Amino acid sequence: MTDTTETTDELMEATYAALCKHGYASLRMQDIADESSKSKATLHYHYESKQDLLYALLDHLTDSFADRIETLEGETPAAQLLALIDAYLEPAADDSAAEFWTALLEIKAQGPYDERFRAELADFDRMLHGRVRSLLEEGRDEGVFRADVDPDEIAEFLVTALNGAQTRHVAVDHPLERTQRTLETYVRRELLADDADETEGRFE
Amino acid sequence: MTDTTETTDELMEATYAALCKHGYASLRMQDIADESSKSKATLHYHYESKQDLLYALLDHLTDSFADRIETLEGETPAAQLLALIDAYLEPAADDSAAEFWTALLEIKAQGPYDERFRAELADFDRMLHGRVRSLLEEGRDEGVFRADVDPDEIAEFLVTALNGAQTRHVAVDHPLERTQRTLETYVRRELLADDADETEGRFE
Repeated sequence: MTDTTETTDELMEATYAALCKHGYASLRMQDIADESSKSKATLHYHYESKQDLLYALLDHLTDSFADRIETLEGETPAAQLLALIDAYLEPAADDSAAEFWTALLEIKAQGPYDERFRAELADFDRMLHGRVRSLLEEGRDEGVFRADVDPDEIAEFLVTALNGAQTRHVAVDHPLERTQRTLETYVRRELLADDADETEGRFE
Repeated sequence: MTDTTETTDELMEATYAALCKHGYASLRMQDIADESSKSKATLHYHYESKQDLLYALLDHLTDSFADRIETLEGETPAAQLLALIDAYLEPAADDSAAEFWTALLEIKAQGPYDERFRAELADFDRMLHGRVRSLLEEGRDEGVFRADVDPDEIAEFLVTALNGAQTRHVAVDHPLERTQRTLETYVRRELLADDADETEGRFE
């Protein structure tokens, strides 16, 4: 690992921590420096502004999540789809990640005003949609999912539902387990082929 | 209509207009006064702070939307469910309402920090869930929807999807028509009873 990669990783962690602690609106470059071993001057050497650090953070999180859901637990695409849903929803289980979701919602509300935020968020959206779609295609081709499953349409639906689960959790403290259960029921009832093996509980 | 009701209505309209124009974070009491015929002092006579005006606005919007979806176009509960989905999604078609959605997302991000916002947002959430559930129950009992439709579970799913559609539209400019089409397909394929009449296109 080069020095630059190390610095980048450290700054991304510091930006994440500062964002969780202070939220988007009141975040300052100094708050990020306070979470790292670097000075504010060093931060400015690498990134012009707080916005640039946040764009880099979103890009970094998209890459990390893409890596994370590249390999999913479960023997079938159906089990893997549930593992993906869990991977998306589980972060809010710990406190700092719940704070991250809240800050992320603030950032999403900047979408119409900030082209770079919108572009980074759209990258994540496309990545998630693409991964869900490929699991659905794979499962349909293997006969795990019904033959009439439209991967693009269902991926659209699931990505929208995941966005909604995040929003409702932040806004009204809607329980995530509720959404997890509802999506599991949906996958089981509406997507699984009639003769797919459900005996293993999580369709493994 | 009493003077007080007139004043309330005017202040709610002014608060809505100012929120759309300035967003949540930078909204000031003066911005709201500027959108009404009242002075800032008069506003303060009725409402202690900008927050109080916003709580009242959310309450007012919940009541208005509840009234609006009390009677829905369409001959069957299935058609009425689609009309409800359209009523929820359509506002963003005009510019000021798109701005309102953005401000609303900012307010949703305040949920964890502001109990009153959370309570008002939860009222809306419950109202929407309740109305969707009652349409599903009605449709199931009339044989329009499948007998195995679980009204509470499907309502949960649809309310989550509607929240997600709003979030994705604000954050990444995701087309609302896409969500409308996806939800229509879902209602048609997964909820309608096999012998329900679909010949009228929108299941009327």
